[in-house]
Amino acid sequence: MSSSRQTPPEAVFDWIDARARERDGAGLRRRLRPRPAETDLLDLASNDYLGLTRDKRVTGAAAAATMRWGAGSTGSRLVTGSTDLHAELELELASFCGAQAALVFSSGYAANLAAVTALSGKDTAIVADQYIHASLIDGCRLSKSDVAVAGHADAGQVAHALATRKAQRALVVTDSVFSVDGDVAPLRELAGTCREHGAALVVDDAHGLGVVGDGGRGAVAAAGLARAADVVTTVTLSKSLGAQGGAVLGPRRVIDHLVNTARTFIFDTGLAPGCAAAALTALRVLREEPERAERARAVAVELATRLRDAGLHTSDPEAAVVSVRAPSPDAAVEWAAACRDAGVHVGCFRPPSVPDKISRLRLTARADLTEADIERAIDVIIRTRPAGE
Amino acid sequence: MSSSRQTPPEAVFDWIDARARERDGAGLRRRLRPRPAETDLLDLASNDYLGLTRDKRVTGAAAAATMRWGAGSTGSRLVTGSTDLHAELELELASFCGAQAALVFSSGYAANLAAVTALSGKDTAIVADQYIHASLIDGCRLSKSDVAVAGHADAGQVAHALATRKAQRALVVTDSVFSVDGDVAPLRELAGTCREHGAALVVDDAHGLGVVGDGGRGAVAAAGLARAADVVTTVTLSKSLGAQGGAVLGPRRVIDHLVNTARTFIFDTGLAPGCAAAALTALRVLREEPERAERARAVAVELATRLRDAGLHTSDPEAAVVSVRAPSPDAAVEWAAACRDAGVHVGCFRPPSVPDKISRLRLTARADLTEADIERAIDVIIRTRPAGE
Ligand SMILES: Cc1ncc(COP(=O)(O)O)c(C=O)c1O
Ligand SMILES: Cc1ncc(COP(=O)(O)O)c(C=O)c1O
Repeated sequence: MSSSRQTPPEAVFDWIDARARERDGAGLRRRLRPRPAETDLLDLASNDYLGLTRDKRVTGAAAAATMRWGAGSTGSRLVTGSTDLHAELELELASFCGAQAALVFSSGYAANLAAVTALSGKDTAIVADQYIHASLIDGCRLSKSDVAVAGHADAGQVAHALATRKAQRALVVTDSVFSVDGDVAPLRELAGTCREHGAALVVDDAHGLGVVGDGGRGAVAAAGLARAADVVTTVTLSKSLGAQGGAVLGPRRVIDHLVNTARTFIFDTGLAPGCAAAALTALRVLREEPERAERARAVAVELATRLRDAGLHTSDPEAAVVSVRAPSPDAAVEWAAACRDAGVHVGCFRPPSVPDKISRLRLTARADLTEADIERAIDVIIRTRPAGE
Repeated sequence: MSSSRQTPPEAVFDWIDARARERDGAGLRRRLRPRPAETDLLDLASNDYLGLTRDKRVTGAAAAATMRWGAGSTGSRLVTGSTDLHAELELELASFCGAQAALVFSSGYAANLAAVTALSGKDTAIVADQYIHASLIDGCRLSKSDVAVAGHADAGQVAHALATRKAQRALVVTDSVFSVDGDVAPLRELAGTCREHGAALVVDDAHGLGVVGDGGRGAVAAAGLARAADVVTTVTLSKSLGAQGGAVLGPRRVIDHLVNTARTFIFDTGLAPGCAAAALTALRVLREEPERAERARAVAVELATRLRDAGLHTSDPEAAVVSVRAPSPDAAVEWAAACRDAGVHVGCFRPPSVPDKISRLRLTARADLTEADIERAIDVIIRTRPAGE
């Protein structure tokens, strides 16, 4: 044992302080800022795209389910954690999106880990878009597969990686709507490429469900792929559906396979009944009020267009997310803080939460924003812009 | 491109059917069995150790919080997903367990991934007990560290692995109460070994919190390690606290480090407010009724003693979990089914949900089981035992 290891217990985590100083120096320190229940801030930062998380039908159903079923599911889905409520949610989610079957997880993160790891392995080559969500990346890292990274939204690079792979089986992994800029992957093209090369396609529709496609059925349904035998979709219940949790949708045999092999399914407590009921009710509201999906998209286009007209660099929204370029991490933080001081809460994405090195404001377009809300948001964002943007 | 890759889309997942046939042949097929809201089954399978998941105070608080805060937290904890409720829960959890600070996650699984990955890396050697929970194993796999596996509860092997490691930094990873058999790790000895070798210790107290130690403060507190500068504890809110979610407890700088680096914190939606309120209220109930912890342990000892007296092979419970050996996976399934037919719901753990190859019944001792419940359970388990056990 080398003497350098004779660290006193108080010094074991000293390396953490060094990392913290580095982050401080780079302007990348993150702090939690808990919010109160009521606020006058205009919310353009949450993922509550349809404005359903506080809808009385949704919260009422969640409260009633909690009283009826209990506050937790009490065990793994394979032991005591599956209730009739979970089964009902799975049935309606699959039917709404047009998939054969669905399986609910405690989070979208867990659903992504499950889909990628259970459908890959040593005998599988994974080809992933370079901007996929962290949870998909972690799934790839856990997969034991060879992972090739393709350029963003570049089906040609995917085809090349598939054609030159060593493994027999292959899995292509992508977000549908990318969470930072709100752009949409070329899903039809990717599905065609997968077919040419005998590969399966996993699509994370976290930001598509509820917003994109007919009545908010998601980007996979919009691409005509919801019932494809070789496509698996993951979604989250925590964004448009206003709750918590995630799901995998796809062919029934894939769902059965997940029940039997996915570690984040087998070794995780089932989703709380209140969350399952909230998501189920939000889904039913969306089915009755499909115009919510359209409205969220229209608000995003309006925000992007007007900010671009004012000279800002915005993304081209195909869903409910708009990003606005900032000149630096510090400038992004200051800009977001200035917006907040002026009553508008916007997201501020910096490394490592962005796929490239570019810091941004991230605006989310909720279906329940009024024209006055939109005016106010645009005015504040433009008024507080950093010099040079 | 080889012709063997010209798979039609319907055949892309044919390999899944082959795996399913293998599982069927080995008696290892898993099926979901959703439960109704009300049942006459006696529950010895859930992890609701303190009987709090349906406690009116807990469900009432969850329902009220859902109405007040919304059904979801609406975003990552660093954007809109942190509420005052999350902060309150973190404060009370840390104070109850005796830690400096706490950080809440959407699941215990996510908390474990966070703790292990954020405290390791290429420059760190991990030494893990061979029976740690799947979520800790996944954390190790994601860590990029050299991982050495030590024999179960074997501090000597841990010391050897630490002494012969190449990396400067080191992390020892263990469950406190192991989930399958309910035995407790030698935490004091492990902590001493860590100190001799300049290593940090991560302890998963998922099955210790609420059950072990003074008033259910957990196995880490019971070992006098809750405030140690070199020990980090993870817990779940989904077992004794009857809700959903997880938390990491430890020195404040570790918690700040997780806020800034843990991928399952930064890239995951915050815990639903209803779940946070349920866990917070369960914690307060436990503080007022500390006898619940003792009662859960006493029930476990009674179950184990009486089943052993009847000639069955049971584990030696130090928490609220008792396992009973079965001769084979099929026999375990049949035994559990016979118990269920007789009105008693017990867990049935088979590969790959067991650390060794041995299938078991897994009984959980709830604090709210009556003497009559216990008599009934023991009678049924003995009456239905397989030949040869
Ligand atoms: C694209 C994408 N996938 C998956 C997730 C994870 O979902 P959840 O937060 O419900 O765990 C998120 C966000 O959190 C996301 O943006
Ligand atoms: C030892 C242990 N750690 C962690 C977990 C994961 O916690 P959760 O189910 O709350 O995600 C579990 C069980 O599910 C467990 O048994």
